[in-house]
Amino acid sequence: MTPITEPRLIRVHVKDNVAVVVNEGGLPSGARLASGLELREAIPEAHKVALADLAQGDAIVRYGVTIGYTNRAIARGSWVHEGLMTAPDAPPLADCPLATATPEALAPLEGYTFEGYRNPDGSTGTKNILGISTTVQCVAPTVEHAVRRIKAEILPRFPHVDDVVAITHPYGCGVAIDAPGAAIPIRTLRNLALHPNFGGEVMVVSLGCEKMQPVRLMGANELPVLDEKASVAVLQDATHGFGEMVATIMAMAEKKLEKLNRRRRVTCPASDLVVGLQCGGSDAMSGVTANPAVGFAADLLVRAGATVMFSEVTEVRDAAHLLTARAAAPEIAQNFVREMAWYDEYLRQGGADRAANPTPGNKRGGLANVVEKAMGSIAKAGSTALVGVAGPGERVTQKGLIFAATPASDFICGTLQLAAGMNMHIFTTGRGTPYGLAMSPVIKVASNSGLARRWPDLIDIDAGRIATAEATVEEVGWEIFLLVLEIASGRKKVWADHWGLHNEFALFNPGPVT
Amino acid sequence: MTPITEPRLIRVHVKDNVAVVVNEGGLPSGARLASGLELREAIPEAHKVALADLAQGDAIVRYGVTIGYTNRAIARGSWVHEGLMTAPDAPPLADCPLATATPEALAPLEGYTFEGYRNPDGSTGTKNILGISTTVQCVAPTVEHAVRRIKAEILPRFPHVDDVVAITHPYGCGVAIDAPGAAIPIRTLRNLALHPNFGGEVMVVSLGCEKMQPVRLMGANELPVLDEKASVAVLQDATHGFGEMVATIMAMAEKKLEKLNRRRRVTCPASDLVVGLQCGGSDAMSGVTANPAVGFAADLLVRAGATVMFSEVTEVRDAAHLLTARAAAPEIAQNFVREMAWYDEYLRQGGADRAANPTPGNKRGGLANVVEKAMGSIAKAGSTALVGVAGPGERVTQKGLIFAATPASDFICGTLQLAAGMNMHIFTTGRGTPYGLAMSPVIKVASNSGLARRWPDLIDIDAGRIATAEATVEEVGWEIFLLVLEIASGRKKVWADHWGLHNEFALFNPGPVT
Repeated sequence: MTPITEPRLIRVHVKDNVAVVVNEGGLPSGARLASGLELREAIPEAHKVALADLAQGDAIVRYGVTIGYTNRAIARGSWVHEGLMTAPDAPPLADCPLATATPEALAPLEGYTFEGYRNPDGSTGTKNILGISTTVQCVAPTVEHAVRRIKAEILPRFPHVDDVVAITHPYGCGVAIDAPGAAIPIRTLRNLALHPNFGGEVMVVSLGCEKMQPVRLMGANELPVLDEKASVAVLQDATHGFGEMVATIMAMAEKKLEKLNRRRRVTCPASDLVVGLQCGGSDAMSGVTANPAVGFAADLLVRAGATVMFSEVTEVRDAAHLLTARAAAPEIAQNFVREMAWYDEYLRQGGADRAANPTPGNKRGGLANVVEKAMGSIAKAGSTALVGVAGPGERVTQKGLIFAATPASDFICGTLQLAAGMNMHIFTTGRGTPYGLAMSPVIKVASNSGLARRWPDLIDIDAGRIATAEATVEEVGWEIFLLVLEIASGRKKVWADHWGLHNEFALFNPGPVT
Repeated sequence: MTPITEPRLIRVHVKDNVAVVVNEGGLPSGARLASGLELREAIPEAHKVALADLAQGDAIVRYGVTIGYTNRAIARGSWVHEGLMTAPDAPPLADCPLATATPEALAPLEGYTFEGYRNPDGSTGTKNILGISTTVQCVAPTVEHAVRRIKAEILPRFPHVDDVVAITHPYGCGVAIDAPGAAIPIRTLRNLALHPNFGGEVMVVSLGCEKMQPVRLMGANELPVLDEKASVAVLQDATHGFGEMVATIMAMAEKKLEKLNRRRRVTCPASDLVVGLQCGGSDAMSGVTANPAVGFAADLLVRAGATVMFSEVTEVRDAAHLLTARAAAPEIAQNFVREMAWYDEYLRQGGADRAANPTPGNKRGGLANVVEKAMGSIAKAGSTALVGVAGPGERVTQKGLIFAATPASDFICGTLQLAAGMNMHIFTTGRGTPYGLAMSPVIKVASNSGLARRWPDLIDIDAGRIATAEATVEEVGWEIFLLVLEIASGRKKVWADHWGLHNEFALFNPGPVT
């Protein structure tokens, strides 16, 4: 965790003609590397150095992949930044190889367990939470008022319940609920209501006149779960004003809390975990430290029989051909291509493309473009076969490595991974973000030690030690894996839960509002 | 406020061949009206009765306008419901008359004042609030944590400040910020930061790496307002973790609170009001009681020199030809047509049209389709000339009756009207909703006395007395106008503020997320 002083670069792949500066604060002009390379100019931390003389039009190679072409000649030892390069086109979806390089299954990993909550539907919770779903934003402030009172006046009597969470959102009315895009937000909200950490207790607050009626939210199949009298509070049924609305919600919540309070953790195999992976505020170190370590942990989880989801369409689009090759079967690769194609078209209609993804911070962090970002991003997905693909907001029940298609927005991705059934979340960051979710623990992994040192009360794991050679990818990967089991068991708290930092749900609604 | 017992219908226009049942609980089959009409079947409250025998294909006329055509013959005294009628097409925009029936100016209304807060930019506040803007959702939980502490630990020392409001939202990153649609959410957030109730004190919390950097949020023109050191907290600048982030926000807020605390209310003419009108959870009574009363109040406000905004594109689309005729000049009518055309195309791209607007509750409330809903909705706009048109999220500075184009979603409309500079909000409802906004008082007007009686602790004015002949449209209109002045002066609180019921901001983002 102490800053290194001697000049140090990281080159990821033997074919790479650029490497990344590890030193905090960057390196000055004239700095000489152990290899003898001398820098021709100052280069910021996590930014790229040319390892060879490059002519105009040459490919710039990182992760063994062309991440761009030079706009002009670049001398060895120079800074290779976004202004000097043109991004390649996205790989054409029609040419993606289908399951041509499916990885062999890794050896199973036996004997790892955590203490979780068993649910009637076969899923497993890592927390024991009362979830209160809402059909429309009209009811949100009333529900929040009631939740404040429930937490203060009722929850203390139910020590085995961790929290009360209201799923509020701007959907449900004032939207084109029969438009093609509407299926996504509706199934997202339905699957959130059925989240493993809610223990199968569904409670819904409805206004009464909204478009998304409770039956539409929950779907006909779920109606048995949704005993109308015990589980649905309709505010417009109140004949005695606001006081009655609050009292109704509180009484219904108390009954649910009584049931939830009887639940106890039991020993569960690691295969009951559903782990969502995400990155946010990435830098060029993310792809060499945090994401590979998470990728190693992902492999351990898959070997232990768990479900591991990676997501963020615009951050994998440029690696589509690599991921389709890794699919376990051609149909799975085709499903992956279908999700990519849908998103290409969605962006095109809005006058954008995948290049809209990288942020000013990504660029300051050394990520020149979305291709470089994508190559670093998919390192999170480890090395196992892609065994399944889920659409945005769909529930995932399959084990192994799954692509759960979502936008890359941290909050939309987190919300959709929750809807997919995620009970543990691993989030890597280079620039740093105080991110958290109320429904599932979020383990935050820093890509660089500087961030971990500056934010000791927000970062759960420092993967920057990989760059400084204090730890290996494998060591940090095991650390993440074991921390997942600790946190999932409720024996330890992530920093986001310590502070109660919980980002709001953010729905993906590709349909219009009315 | 007591239910009436004798059968009673309301017919709005002399040409109407349907009328609406006033009686709570509806009327039974065989009920005989004072006119001699006998009902052939039971008809629910606020639903329509045929006043004449209608042949198949006949126009059904309400508000003097064709709201549909019969699917089959309907006998006099029968229930005319949505299943029996086909909606007409929307008026073609190309044929809309331009300023052909501009109303004469009404007599000015002098001498009405309220006690408000004068702002450096010439606008006037009705509250004195510290607003904390955010550039991205990443910072929202941290800001909310800080705001809880500010309210508990600092605000009590500043008794002349009403509240601290964080403007949190899911925009700012993970969005196509250069797409054509992005201008709308960005200017909305900018104009919210500059809201009259924030007294010109702008404070922004940024993460650091997000797409919407503070300078992009505020725009180059506003940079003098945004003294970076005093007004922008960047969380990624924190070198000592979460504690430092919170301390930075709190220290900055305290300085702003010191300034705001020096402000005092002064007597302002009613012309300093910027009143936003909206309806939500409408029923068929909305168009004969609450909305006409609000329309009368709107006329009083316009006569007093105030700005009055009406909105909700899909709820005025079917009245486009009536509103363009009312414009003060052809260019204004053309601007109105431009906003309608933009929204037609936006809905078409999403596979929807204006018919997606009405809700199940609207229909249970007797509103057969969007045409009938629109005719009731525009009653809020009173009878004065349309003098201006604003795009979604644009600031309005002009006096008189303005169409501020917004979706009809209550929360998006409310947010966009706030961005336009609204300092008082009037909201009519028939089905009932516990709606409120943190930044501006919301006066809730019930369309029927049953609702007002059931929810005495949420409804501020009962316009149902118009249906039961206990009050006239003019009387309730004056009541609303005078209540606006009382509330704007801080002498009285609306129920939503009494309970702290404040709906979240909901942005209109027609662009894609990434």
